[in-house]
Amino acid sequence: MNKNTICAISTPAGQGGIAVIRVSGEEVFDICDKIFIPSKRDKKLSGQQPYTICFGRIYKNNEILDEVLISVFRNPHSFTGEDTVEITCHGSLYIQQEILKLLLENGCSLALPGEFTQRAFLNGKMDLSQAEAVADLIASSSAASHRLAISQMRGGFSKELQLLRSQLLDFVSLIELELDFGEEDVEFADRTQLLALSENIRKIINRLVQSFVLGNAIKNGIPVAIVGETNAGKSTLLNHLLNEEKAIVSEIHGTTRDVIEDVVNIAGISFRFIDTAGIRETGDVIETMGIERTFQKIEQASIVIWMIDATQFNEKTEELADKIISKTDNKQLIIVFNKIDKISLEEQTILEEEFLPHIPAKRIYLSAKYKKNTDILERALLDATNLPDFSDNDVIVTNMRHYEALSKALDAIERVDNGLRQGISGDFISQDIRECMHYLGEITGDISTDEVLGNIFSKFCIGK
Amino acid sequence: MNKNTICAISTPAGQGGIAVIRVSGEEVFDICDKIFIPSKRDKKLSGQQPYTICFGRIYKNNEILDEVLISVFRNPHSFTGEDTVEITCHGSLYIQQEILKLLLENGCSLALPGEFTQRAFLNGKMDLSQAEAVADLIASSSAASHRLAISQMRGGFSKELQLLRSQLLDFVSLIELELDFGEEDVEFADRTQLLALSENIRKIINRLVQSFVLGNAIKNGIPVAIVGETNAGKSTLLNHLLNEEKAIVSEIHGTTRDVIEDVVNIAGISFRFIDTAGIRETGDVIETMGIERTFQKIEQASIVIWMIDATQFNEKTEELADKIISKTDNKQLIIVFNKIDKISLEEQTILEEEFLPHIPAKRIYLSAKYKKNTDILERALLDATNLPDFSDNDVIVTNMRHYEALSKALDAIERVDNGLRQGISGDFISQDIRECMHYLGEITGDISTDEVLGNIFSKFCIGK
Repeated sequence: MNKNTICAISTPAGQGGIAVIRVSGEEVFDICDKIFIPSKRDKKLSGQQPYTICFGRIYKNNEILDEVLISVFRNPHSFTGEDTVEITCHGSLYIQQEILKLLLENGCSLALPGEFTQRAFLNGKMDLSQAEAVADLIASSSAASHRLAISQMRGGFSKELQLLRSQLLDFVSLIELELDFGEEDVEFADRTQLLALSENIRKIINRLVQSFVLGNAIKNGIPVAIVGETNAGKSTLLNHLLNEEKAIVSEIHGTTRDVIEDVVNIAGISFRFIDTAGIRETGDVIETMGIERTFQKIEQASIVIWMIDATQFNEKTEELADKIISKTDNKQLIIVFNKIDKISLEEQTILEEEFLPHIPAKRIYLSAKYKKNTDILERALLDATNLPDFSDNDVIVTNMRHYEALSKALDAIERVDNGLRQGISGDFISQDIRECMHYLGEITGDISTDEVLGNIFSKFCIGK
Repeated sequence: MNKNTICAISTPAGQGGIAVIRVSGEEVFDICDKIFIPSKRDKKLSGQQPYTICFGRIYKNNEILDEVLISVFRNPHSFTGEDTVEITCHGSLYIQQEILKLLLENGCSLALPGEFTQRAFLNGKMDLSQAEAVADLIASSSAASHRLAISQMRGGFSKELQLLRSQLLDFVSLIELELDFGEEDVEFADRTQLLALSENIRKIINRLVQSFVLGNAIKNGIPVAIVGETNAGKSTLLNHLLNEEKAIVSEIHGTTRDVIEDVVNIAGISFRFIDTAGIRETGDVIETMGIERTFQKIEQASIVIWMIDATQFNEKTEELADKIISKTDNKQLIIVFNKIDKISLEEQTILEEEFLPHIPAKRIYLSAKYKKNTDILERALLDATNLPDFSDNDVIVTNMRHYEALSKALDAIERVDNGLRQGISGDFISQDIRECMHYLGEITGDISTDEVLGNIFSKFCIGK
């Protein structure tokens, strides 16, 4: 374990009222005592009690660089588990940089991305899945993804894994005890009981594996493509869906527009709208290029909204239909007839009855301009996600690395199950149980390599 | 004074490892006790000692929103002088916004720009010039502007003004005592002594007024225009000057590039390079439009660098000379001959001797590409600023509002001086002294209107 003292700006990059620089490691007090003088000069920073705040000045070349507040935390009662201080300074870029430079000059190293959290993991403050949840928490932008991240950070997932590991340990102990007495041909454990045990473990792991479909949708959003001719009203609809969201967010925070651009949140699920080129008509022919480009984008989507101008419905629309159907085999297709404010009820009825009745797609009749029936579309989008049903208390897997390890653990426990049914020798079964435990251990970090850790923490932001 | 409890995100806008939300006002503990549960449940936040940090959880609808650290400050020992807490949360936009919403739902108001600092002023924690220095400190991006801001924030300027005010008060007391006994035609004060007093005050105020040229240059930078034909090497030179700076800054902080774009720091003075269109030749004629556009930009500059390709020097250059000279009457002109690596020493000597010897401009011979003599240009730029000489310990005025008030105070004290010399009646003199005091009082905020305060604090960032 690297014991050097690290520092980084932990608050968002840029200028603000204040900024916080975090410093952690064995020499944090020695280093800070060199550059910081408390306003009550009788006590150095190193003499301060933990969980207290000390007001004073940071000096550079005998000039005051800033008046700051320093929060003091002591090993092991800090985020990293090491001695730590957090320097709250004025939020000018100049001051942030100069304090960082001073710390570096006096013996600190610049923290790598995620290095504070990595230290928390290495010092046993949290397991690896909790550490990963810290990054997820910071990146989460919807209520649902936030809830999953905080539950995982607080150890909900870890507890489930611990339970599994202890069940597997009991299991493997029983089997291996038998092996020790193998010569005597005893059976310590009732096979039916063992089978029930493995079946139970298999179920739990399987449920976790299945939950990833939901977890991934919550974390990364559901990709949706809107296709249709250029005048069908795609952007009016998208802007309407987006603006509802934006209005809420921008009320408080003026800077989030970029982040939520083209992501619409419906009932806690994020829908990511993929930018598709409009399909244009060239003369009487529907331009092939436009369709091809659109179809490439459709590949990335799991839901496709085909938007049709209800006033412009004609044989070309039917021509387009075949092409779209052929590309949306494995996807959820929603056909949206827009501009219903411009047609009569009678015309709408004809549309409902006669438009390609053989196509197995949800049909919605709306007016994007007058926001009529757009709520029906929102419900249809939620239905189309086809997400598995989990309760609020269930652990949901959101992380691809966890999903892969769980899938391997599932393979192993299925081999155990088959082995027991086929009366396979105990040492093979024991090996498969240990493999299952190994994969679960990879998730919590009980088993990890520098490469895996490097991979995980390099994706963190600096300062966390 | 508004006593509601205010809150705002005080750290820079965006996503980061952590963020800090500041809450200040009478009800801060009542409000926070509703949403925050300390991990040591025996003590509510309102029971915490000042200058301590409390770890716990913020709840929304009985769900954990985040695990946070709350720093506790108590009236009057806080930045605002009120009860204040600073909530350090995880730096996701979602969490920042949700905590802010929770605070608003539980009785807080969203802080106006600068409202925390305005409260610090209204609660007597600092005078108005110190409050203004807080914003300057946050905006300062060079060592020199930072030093001035911190000195002003720490009360250097205020002390000077207090001294002046007390001298003026003594002065006016002497005069007004005479007026009270006016009938008796006594002179309590020796006129020579009074004249010496007013002369001293005038000198101090005058020095402060003069210092604004330097203060403004340090705070806002010196505008410089580089003009010349498109192939003269303008951008090579500018990139060279800029890159030296950027290399230092980007080492630590990857996000500051935009801020320092086109601002070069030489010996603590910022030079702002104004983007000028290159002057192009069309056939044998120098394009008039290009020159006109360039000349408009020259208007904003106080220093003009005219860059000439030393290898391309010809009669058109001389033709251009007249036009440039006519536009730089009241400006510092520096003529830079670039690409001297491509000409012989002999050719350079001819250039030095024969190129428009009547033009009163500094000439520099350099190679931007090979960075030869660019240090000479940097020194020439510093010389061209023609800034008044002040020592490090002198108070430097950086604020336009202060400059204007000081100029009016100077007018008033000059009338006092003249009045004394001309033996004008004491009541007129007294009135002028009081006017001088009035303007100085406007700087410190002893005399202020809501409009003036609104003007000042609306330019602050939110959260400070």
